[in-house]
Amino acid sequence: MISVDTIISAKWVIPVEPDNRILEQHSIAIKAGEIVAILPTDKCTQQYQAKETVDCPDHALIPGLVNTHTHTAMSLFRGMSDDLPLMTWLNDHIWPAEMKWVSSEFVRDGAELAIAEMLQSGTTCFCDMYFFPEDVAVAARKAQIRAAIGLIVIDFPSAYAQDAQEYISKGLALHDELRNENLLSTIFAPHAPYTVADEALKRICTLAEELDMQIIMHVHETRHEVDDAVKATGVRPLARLQALDLLTPRLAAVHMTVLTDEEIDLAAATGVHVIHCPESNLKLASGFCQVEKLRAKKINVALGTDGAASNNDLDMLSEMRTAALLAKGVAGDATAMPAHEALRLATINGARALGLDHKIGSIEVGKDADLVAINLAKTATTPVYEPVSQIVYATSRDQVSHCWVAGKLLLDNGKLTTLDEPDLCAKANKWRDVIKKSDSGD
Amino acid sequence: MISVDTIISAKWVIPVEPDNRILEQHSIAIKAGEIVAILPTDKCTQQYQAKETVDCPDHALIPGLVNTHTHTAMSLFRGMSDDLPLMTWLNDHIWPAEMKWVSSEFVRDGAELAIAEMLQSGTTCFCDMYFFPEDVAVAARKAQIRAAIGLIVIDFPSAYAQDAQEYISKGLALHDELRNENLLSTIFAPHAPYTVADEALKRICTLAEELDMQIIMHVHETRHEVDDAVKATGVRPLARLQALDLLTPRLAAVHMTVLTDEEIDLAAATGVHVIHCPESNLKLASGFCQVEKLRAKKINVALGTDGAASNNDLDMLSEMRTAALLAKGVAGDATAMPAHEALRLATINGARALGLDHKIGSIEVGKDADLVAINLAKTATTPVYEPVSQIVYATSRDQVSHCWVAGKLLLDNGKLTTLDEPDLCAKANKWRDVIKKSDSGD
Repeated sequence: MISVDTIISAKWVIPVEPDNRILEQHSIAIKAGEIVAILPTDKCTQQYQAKETVDCPDHALIPGLVNTHTHTAMSLFRGMSDDLPLMTWLNDHIWPAEMKWVSSEFVRDGAELAIAEMLQSGTTCFCDMYFFPEDVAVAARKAQIRAAIGLIVIDFPSAYAQDAQEYISKGLALHDELRNENLLSTIFAPHAPYTVADEALKRICTLAEELDMQIIMHVHETRHEVDDAVKATGVRPLARLQALDLLTPRLAAVHMTVLTDEEIDLAAATGVHVIHCPESNLKLASGFCQVEKLRAKKINVALGTDGAASNNDLDMLSEMRTAALLAKGVAGDATAMPAHEALRLATINGARALGLDHKIGSIEVGKDADLVAINLAKTATTPVYEPVSQIVYATSRDQVSHCWVAGKLLLDNGKLTTLDEPDLCAKANKWRDVIKKSDSGD
Repeated sequence: MISVDTIISAKWVIPVEPDNRILEQHSIAIKAGEIVAILPTDKCTQQYQAKETVDCPDHALIPGLVNTHTHTAMSLFRGMSDDLPLMTWLNDHIWPAEMKWVSSEFVRDGAELAIAEMLQSGTTCFCDMYFFPEDVAVAARKAQIRAAIGLIVIDFPSAYAQDAQEYISKGLALHDELRNENLLSTIFAPHAPYTVADEALKRICTLAEELDMQIIMHVHETRHEVDDAVKATGVRPLARLQALDLLTPRLAAVHMTVLTDEEIDLAAATGVHVIHCPESNLKLASGFCQVEKLRAKKINVALGTDGAASNNDLDMLSEMRTAALLAKGVAGDATAMPAHEALRLATINGARALGLDHKIGSIEVGKDADLVAINLAKTATTPVYEPVSQIVYATSRDQVSHCWVAGKLLLDNGKLTTLDEPDLCAKANKWRDVIKKSDSGD
């Protein structure tokens, strides 16, 4: 008998890689946080013994979901100002609220709330972009979730930093601090072409190369952004990024709703990743990302929820469904974005965009055991003809029963094991009370 | 003290009518299934005493959701054949499966599964369109849910009836049988313009007038349908329905994704209701219903999930979210379909389309107590600045804790009180087993 730490046995195992197969009655053996074997449950029982066994008799086991774009702390602004035009929303609500409230404590509390919600809906890795990334790292470390912490760079001052140079140097300090962490990595996060000047972008480009890091940035989110850039500079943002040598496989371009066919070809030729945020794009009426066209050109498309202020949840199951449904509507083709493909967007493609696909994104021997169990024995997912169809088109987040990150159980039958849910909700409610009071008092 | 049957006290009460107000710390007093008072909880405690009190301290109380379009029995085909072109899906999968499997027992078991799912996600009234409507009525009566049972009429034979005449006479018999029921009503349900000939449509039109009934029909679901009709008859389906005098406030036209501006004006002028099924329209790539244009013309737009084979759930909370998000994307306007409006689509507008707005669709004195409590004290809906925003943009179905229909508690803290969930799931799984076995055996 081979000794391992944990054996998880599930009715269905959906590895995602190497292909779209579905394994029935299989087990995963985990040792030191890594997947060491994937085999039929009856064989596993004969060959392996574990300190801990978890049976998931009605469940599908999938790779942990990878939320490639969010602003976790903004969960504290969830639903504060909905159904407004984009620029009113930003200028009159979100930016003033950020100026007034965002602090180290705010970011820590908001990130903790967001991480709790993400684990409860099957996300085991997220990529954040926000002020005070150190505090996002603190919250992630406490939760023991995996995270790519965005080192934000923006040309305007905040409570966090005064100018691009200070953002970059604080980011580099955080990168140094986290370099030996197993679960936390860093990623450059220049906010957007219209908020970061050439000099800072060039610096980031050089640093990313030197430090072997990825870059994530909002790019071509709205027609407005593209038109303004053309008016001001004569070129579209993507052309400017190309001139700055930013269009490489290091770049994860978020949104990309406004693209010419030539720009799609350019993204394909340069290996840029596209981070698709369908619910945010809909809610802010930003336009439709042409996901099927991107996929046809073999561009790596990953999935993100964006922040809770424009979604309003961080639920990657619902985001997968929206991505699968919307792709069909936009392409006018019911065969667009089949369920298995939507699951790839939310797992292996996300891992690739973040440069983490050697570690996560699929259930394969040698990868870290970032796993999620989904209980399909609920009325809304009964009967099951095809588990991946049920996961993408009919499952809701409460069906996520277990999450493991690097073999550690972070969600146990719906209960968070590393975070105190009543405490973090109480903190969030306190923030709402002071923000609301201040708003109505002014 | 005034004696009543039930008092429900909630943190937020959202009556929907007469306007979009939100009442805090209010109570609803119910007697003989009707709402008799809506007042602040402290006053209620002084003035009313009840046999039963229910406290919902973290909850929003909303009118029960009205799912105006579904094919309940199709829940047994959920996920059987996804991601296929519409005509392949219908011709090679759905229609053959219906020919082979649909029976009285199939419809009863499928309807029971669907009703369980609907109650668990806050739907207290649904409108069905399927074969064997008697059996849908049996399931609904057992569950004690409210339903408008569609009397299906279609020009092709099925296990249920041979021709339009037989469908109509069976429907009339069911109408007679149900005429004294409080919770069950009937509605004519001719399948679609392309499957029902003029003669039957004329007959339905006359009967609906005589019997004071509504009519529900798939209309202009796809461009294909409209183009085919023009090719075959020279006129678009809506023009044909107008010539047959079907365009009146009695008609609830389902889908309506393909409309000219003149057709929108015609719908507005004639008072036709539009049943919007956004997730089904996306999944089958049927086209985008121009909901904002319809609303601008004061057309009553209600919401439906369609059947589980093209959705794949019957979750009206998720459908509201999709409707609100998609309306913004399609209109290119982030202010389109605000959260309160999405809630109206799913409640009072649905009641209107079904001719039931004198009884349900809002929390008002004199209406039946069809109510739903939603627990917002979960991480994904924390904090709450605006409860309706949270319900539409961030709530998932597991947060539905209680449902009442005409004052009777059908869902008690997530538990069904009139249906046996393990039993109905076991029946659904049996159907899947025989259907799968037969498919692979052939």
